[in-house]
Order: sequence, then structure tokens, then C-alpha cells
Amino acid sequence: MAETFHVVPVAAHESLVRSAYLHRGFDAAEAEHAAKLATAATKHGIRTHNAIKAVHLDELFGSKAGGCVPKASIRRLPSRFKAAEVWDARKKLGQAVAWEAIDTCMRLADTYGCGTVSIDNAFHYLWGGGYVMEAAKKGYIAYTNCTASLAEVVPFKGVFPTLGTNPHSWGFPTTEAVGFPIVIDWATSVIAMGRVQQLKREGKPLPPNAAVDKDGKPTTDPDKAVSLLPFGDHKGYGLSLINEIVAAFIGGSLPTLRSRAPVVGEKQGCAFFFQVIHPDALSGGAFAKGRSQAENIKAVLGDVLGHGNEACMLPGQIEAEAAKRSEQAGGLLFSRAEVDALNEIAHEAGVTPLDPAALPIA
Amino acid sequence: MAETFHVVPVAAHESLVRSAYLHRGFDAAEAEHAAKLATAATKHGIRTHNAIKAVHLDELFGSKAGGCVPKASIRRLPSRFKAAEVWDARKKLGQAVAWEAIDTCMRLADTYGCGTVSIDNAFHYLWGGGYVMEAAKKGYIAYTNCTASLAEVVPFKGVFPTLGTNPHSWGFPTTEAVGFPIVIDWATSVIAMGRVQQLKREGKPLPPNAAVDKDGKPTTDPDKAVSLLPFGDHKGYGLSLINEIVAAFIGGSLPTLRSRAPVVGEKQGCAFFFQVIHPDALSGGAFAKGRSQAENIKAVLGDVLGHGNEACMLPGQIEAEAAKRSEQAGGLLFSRAEVDALNEIAHEAGVTPLDPAALPIA
Repeated sequence: MAETFHVVPVAAHESLVRSAYLHRGFDAAEAEHAAKLATAATKHGIRTHNAIKAVHLDELFGSKAGGCVPKASIRRLPSRFKAAEVWDARKKLGQAVAWEAIDTCMRLADTYGCGTVSIDNAFHYLWGGGYVMEAAKKGYIAYTNCTASLAEVVPFKGVFPTLGTNPHSWGFPTTEAVGFPIVIDWATSVIAMGRVQQLKREGKPLPPNAAVDKDGKPTTDPDKAVSLLPFGDHKGYGLSLINEIVAAFIGGSLPTLRSRAPVVGEKQGCAFFFQVIHPDALSGGAFAKGRSQAENIKAVLGDVLGHGNEACMLPGQIEAEAAKRSEQAGGLLFSRAEVDALNEIAHEAGVTPLDPAALPIA
Repeated sequence: MAETFHVVPVAAHESLVRSAYLHRGFDAAEAEHAAKLATAATKHGIRTHNAIKAVHLDELFGSKAGGCVPKASIRRLPSRFKAAEVWDARKKLGQAVAWEAIDTCMRLADTYGCGTVSIDNAFHYLWGGGYVMEAAKKGYIAYTNCTASLAEVVPFKGVFPTLGTNPHSWGFPTTEAVGFPIVIDWATSVIAMGRVQQLKREGKPLPPNAAVDKDGKPTTDPDKAVSLLPFGDHKGYGLSLINEIVAAFIGGSLPTLRSRAPVVGEKQGCAFFFQVIHPDALSGGAFAKGRSQAENIKAVLGDVLGHGNEACMLPGQIEAEAAKRSEQAGGLLFSRAEVDALNEIAHEAGVTPLDPAALPIA
């Protein structure tokens, strides 16, 4: 039986999320940015990075733990480079910093073809795919990576977790070509720690080569799993290292200290890297058979998914289908357990909770 | 027993490679660029992309097949973007185009922080890792991707090969931190077709989930394997798609036509994308414990490879160790079979072959 969902109107959802952040001391713009990302995540079916996760993260590592500072202002550092900015986020809310960074990258890309913003002293931005998807919907190629909050992943052939789940997110402006932006967005571990906990609750084994026990030995037993493994052996390990190296160039310190108990004289925040490329800045303008750039992308993707490959999906397709379901339902789809969790947040913020009985079912 | 190698002096090797290219109608600069990459590949132990492979590729798809045009000149296309160039390579030798592109990116990065060069109508550049390693040795962060010559890889959950082995290559200026540049450089297929053929000759099975048979079913039987699979399921598939999408934005056409029998009105060349970032353009300048940027990178990598992970390697370490062995031997290390193949090339070019008996053994 398919899971049923309660339909929460976007306005009601955003009002609740804004209230939660205002109650925690964030300003109106920060609350707005948090609400915008939470809505985008749920609308696109990203249940692991919704408002509930965002508030939980703020509780564990954020404003309640000193990892995030409400109302902090970003310090733009002087730079001799015209198309690259570096910011000290001063632990400002990650979503607010990220939305501003992707906007700045687009502006830089309009002039220079490619714009980058690198960010030190950051607090987790949650769903990297959301920022690059937004840029892709506006017609740009976008990329971001960040260092994950905790070192939970063991390097290839290692035994001890010293890497984050370090995600990479790419977005491409392919709406004209295929109806939605292609978004390639995943962690560099085989699975997330949340998935380990879920399988543990369900009494199911982990996939092979996804996790290791306390001695660094691969295990499929969720009760024995203490750390994660990168996907694709040395390849996923290399991709995970990229985030740590880029962060180290920006100003990030030791991954095993990140978001852990404070260490005097250390830096324990995340780093973000954002980049946007204007599609015209890549174009040679000479597409076969007189195609436009969008028609060319459509033809290439049609070739990739032709020849018997019609059952394959494009990255971002699941998210686009989820967005369509949300639109058809007229709101955001939450399980009953999620509605209850949202209502705990409403209760904490002292605002009227959602009435499950009054929400349509989809 | 360890394989023994003949030591070929760099000058003798480069003279032979230059002669081969001059004999095939390339000009002195092109021959020089081809020799430079061939030397870099063999010096760093990249036996799959040495001079023998380069000449073989020219034979199959290059100047002998119309895919590469000796003495072609690059056409720099007009662009309104200051930090991004687009070139029409007009099927010029891939190595010559690539060395020039990475140089141009470094120059752009000096001013703008980040520079990109996108290239249409390209001919395979062989070892992407070589170009980003060179930039990294000069102190820059570099990245390249390209579309591989042939569509040999089946999309995730597909049956028919419509993607190239589409590699990504990243280089980081980490010599001061760890003694060599970190170079992350691999194809997005689990293994290359050359590896399938090697295992077939040796009568050994393929690794699981690396190849499919004519019906698109996974097989470990090298006699039945006709196409390759991306590494890491949907993740490697997404990474492979990136190259096709970027190429489609630049001007590349259908992957299944690439490097195949000519089709009137079609474009059948590869596309390249190059990007260089100046490390100062990422730096927030505030490293923990008063470290310099290089010291910070050293500390971060020391943390990743500490805590019991001392047996792990960094990407690029194997290549750096091979380079050290080459330097200690006083030349480039070739197997006897490789020396014979080089001598076939010398014979074709009408120059004096190497005398295996006169070459030191290492």
C-alpha cells in the first residue's frame, strides 16, 4: 500500500518554519531563507532535509550548541580576483548564506562566464541540491560542495572515520530540453548514517560495503556498524577528499574536530564552495543539424536514453516528479509522523499547530 | 617476481615520439606537445596512455581516419565573458590543444580567480590527469573533463552503451603539503574496455557489475562482455552524464555517433572542458593555529590519514612514486613488449630504433 500524506499548504508551512527560526533568535531574512529551503526540499520529495531535519540540526549543532549564530552578518573578504569572492560566514545560518552565495555566483557568471564564492566558518546548508536546482531553473549551470558536519566516513582502505559524507551537487538548466533541471546530488558515502539507523529500526541488513564495525571491518549488521564507507572504493574516496581539500584551502580545519566538543584555538565549522557558469560561456554555437543549444541537449539526452535505455532515469527526474505531485495536491506532502514533528516545532515556537484532521490527504 | 623494465632516456623517447608525429604530418609544436604528454604519462606509470597508445589512437580515430587534422589551427571564438574562452579546435591534435588550454586557464585564473576554456570539435587528449597535474605542480587547482571517443558504457538500469567512459580529472597544488600534487583522475566506468580485453587474454573473470552482455545483463565472463557499466550505480552514471551534458552545451552531438563511421551533417568529435582556480581565490586567510594555507592542507590530510588510517593512500601518490622510480632509474621505464612497440613506431617513422640490449634494466 502506498504511503498516504497530509497536504500542508505552502503558506502554512512557511509560516510555521519562519516562526520556529524567529523564536530561536534568527532575523526575518534568515527565517525566510530557512523556510524557502525547507519548502523546496519537501516539494521535491527530499524528506531527509526538510524543516524537521533543519530544526533538529539547529538543536544539535546550531544555535543551541554555538555552531550557528543567529543574526550574524557575513564578512566579505577583500580579494584581488574579479570573478571569485571569499566570505567569512561567521557561523550565520547556512541556508541564508547559501542562497546569497548562489545569487552572487549568478551575478558574477553574467559578467565573467563563471563565478565562484568560497565560504569559511559556515554552518551546514542542508540540501545542496536545492541551491543548484534554483540556479538551474534560472538558466545557469551550478555546482556546490561542502564539508559535512561530522567525520563519519572511513577513507578507502582505512579503519577510522575521518571524512564527512561530503556531498557534491551539480545543476544543469535543462528544463527546455527535458522538462526539468538535471540535478546530480549525492553524498560520497554509500549510504547516510540516518539510513543505517532506519535499517536498524526495521531489523534489515545494510547493503554490502556500506559500513564498517568498530575495528574498521565491513559489516552488513546495522547493530555493529559504527562508520560509513565511501561509494565506489577509491573513486568515492577521492570525491570525498575533494571537499576536505577545498575546505582546507578556504580555511577549514581538522575534519575529526568538526562540530565536536569545542577545542580552544581550533576552527570547527564547515566550509562551502559555490560555482555558477553561464551556459553561453560554454557555447561554441555550432550545433549539429542547426539545433539550438537546448535542442542539442535534448538530442544528446535522447540518444543516451534511447536504443533500449528508455527505462533509465535522469538525475533530478524523481525530484521533478515529486514536485509535480506536490503541485497537483496543492501543497507539501507530509506523513502523519512528520505533521506531528512539525507540530512539536510549532509548540516550541508558541504558534498554532497544524490541524491534521483539516489537512487534505494525498 | 616484479616485472623488469628497460630504461629509455627521456631525450631518446621524446625524439622518437616527435619523429612519429612529424612523419604523420603534424608540425613541430604538435609533435612537441605529443612528446611532452607521452613522457609525463610513462614517467608517472600511466601505461594505458603512453606514446604507444597515442599513436594507436591516431591510427584508429585520428589523422589516419579523419578524426584529427595535422597542422590545424585553433579558432578562438568571440565571447562576451571575461574569464571564459570557447575554442573550436578544428580537430587539432588533442594533446596540443589541451596543453594550450590549461595554460590559458592559468592565465585567466591569475586575473579572475577562476578561468575556464571549453573546446568543441576536439580530438582525444589521452591523459587528463597529466594536464591537471602540470597545473597543480605550478601551484593551481585544475579540473578537466572530456567525452571519450566511443560510447561503450550503459546508463544505470539501461541495456545499450550510449555513454563514453567519460573521465574526470582534478589536480590540487599540494606539493608543499604532502610532497606531490593530489590528482584524482579516473574513468566513470568500473573498468576500461582495455582491461576487459586484458582479462580475456589472461582467462580471468571480470569484477562483478563492471560489464554487460549483448542483452544488457551483467556478466563477469570477458568473452560475453560487450559493454561497460558506470561505477557506483546512479552516482557514476551521473558523473558520466556530466561530461555528455557539458559537451552538449559546448557543441558535441550524439554520443553514439562519436568517432564512428562518418554521418553527413553530423558532428562526431569530442569536447573538452578545462578549469583552473588560483588557490588564493579560495583562501579566507584565517587558518587555525596560525597555519599557512599549505600547512593547513598538510594538517587536514594528516588528520584524514591518521587515527589508524596510515595505510591509506592519497590520489596521485602512486603516480608520484612512479615518477620517483623513473627519476632514480634515470629515464622512462618500458617493458620489453613496450620497447618493441616503440620500435615499430620508430620503424614506421623511418628513424633509428632503440637498442634493447643497450638500455639499462630497472
